[in-house]
Amino acid sequence: MPMYDPTLTQHATGAAIKTVEAHQDPQEITYHASWYCPFTHRGWITLEEKNIPYQYREINIYKHDENYDHFLEINPKGLVPALEYHGKALGESLILTEFLEDAYPEAQPALWPADAFERAYARLWVDYVAKSIVPAYFRLIQAQGEERQAAAREEYYKILRTFADLVKGPYFLGEQFSFVDVAIAPFVVRDTVLKVKRGYERAEVGEKWKAYAETVEKRPSVVKTTSNIEDIIQFYGPYLRDEADSQIAKATRQGNAI
Amino acid sequence: MPMYDPTLTQHATGAAIKTVEAHQDPQEITYHASWYCPFTHRGWITLEEKNIPYQYREINIYKHDENYDHFLEINPKGLVPALEYHGKALGESLILTEFLEDAYPEAQPALWPADAFERAYARLWVDYVAKSIVPAYFRLIQAQGEERQAAAREEYYKILRTFADLVKGPYFLGEQFSFVDVAIAPFVVRDTVLKVKRGYERAEVGEKWKAYAETVEKRPSVVKTTSNIEDIIQFYGPYLRDEADSQIAKATRQGNAI
Repeated sequence: MPMYDPTLTQHATGAAIKTVEAHQDPQEITYHASWYCPFTHRGWITLEEKNIPYQYREINIYKHDENYDHFLEINPKGLVPALEYHGKALGESLILTEFLEDAYPEAQPALWPADAFERAYARLWVDYVAKSIVPAYFRLIQAQGEERQAAAREEYYKILRTFADLVKGPYFLGEQFSFVDVAIAPFVVRDTVLKVKRGYERAEVGEKWKAYAETVEKRPSVVKTTSNIEDIIQFYGPYLRDEADSQIAKATRQGNAI
Repeated sequence: MPMYDPTLTQHATGAAIKTVEAHQDPQEITYHASWYCPFTHRGWITLEEKNIPYQYREINIYKHDENYDHFLEINPKGLVPALEYHGKALGESLILTEFLEDAYPEAQPALWPADAFERAYARLWVDYVAKSIVPAYFRLIQAQGEERQAAAREEYYKILRTFADLVKGPYFLGEQFSFVDVAIAPFVVRDTVLKVKRGYERAEVGEKWKAYAETVEKRPSVVKTTSNIEDIIQFYGPYLRDEADSQIAKATRQGNAI
């Protein structure tokens, strides 16, 4: 989590706050979330995409209220997101999104391909997003000084090109919006931070990436769960100064696995 | 891969060579494998466990024969294991094992729990094996000097205890042998390397771990795919001297993600 910024909004804004307000009633699923968190965003996109009933509960780790106490009780690691289901909690964004597919098989659309080999292929690229793209995103956002930023930017472009080359269009696997798109979508909408603060341009990755990014950011489930970009940029302030103290920020600083 | 040791066996030994010999006929699946590789081992255990027909093909990365050329053609990264299915290849041991469950739903036993929440719980612990236990295993095996070895050993014990505390017995999830056991089994049978060379003792982790490890290493699918321990120890020679040049050895040396 970032160091505490008292001027940062403590809840979602823009399109996302309307979605929060529409999901305040108790349901089988309670989604313990932080509006700014890209990992939270994956589960939220999945819930909206599949139209699964859920209660959204904002967790503010700097404000240890009743919500927070309950969250910590069911989820002792204290990391968002956590998906509560019948009194038990699941963490890890990529695991809880997959749980939603398994637990609500009737909820459409399916986010994994039906074919077993295609599904494994999709898993390989979800893995690439997690192990290659996400760490490179954080390395660029935390890079200090023009020279290091330029090197991190080129590295990020290169890693994105490997992915973009394989986009079948309009989505990664073709017509089907899948977990590959869910995994990367939060980092697509957050690339404005890199554009404004790190000289990143979609077109520098390539036209194929630019077209894909524009498609993903317009997906209704993504739009409805994204706060105002100015608030997201403000959230990343401590990251941009390499002062954030979240697990991911520390791992990035130390060159460790996320 | 380790530096080339001309005295190291170039194929499986002990119980495993009998299994190799019984799987030489062409099948829908060709399993491109290296007898010593713990990641290869996961897929091999899964194939044997579920009794899925496969052809075993030993890949020797130092001997670029016909098998190797074909392997590289379908799997350009050149990493073992690779599972070939209808002319296309999948890498990543945890993904190709799951593919086997998806592609052969009639093959018993099922290695994921039927219940969606239990399945997600199992995924979290497969993830723990991959992200916490495996890196700690390699840190210990590559640690140089008594002081560093002692620290790495204590760290490995601690990481294993977190896992062992949750073993329901006899297997991680209880009666069902699952992908959690498949993920860790290659590192259970390879802990003899740590015992002989790094002063590791199962009982130091705890009696629960000792009982679990003894159960896992006796599972027939594990026994049938394990070579003689002396050959496995010899294979790890370059790792024990921290001279191995495989991707995993280099990542471990640099403190990076695997």
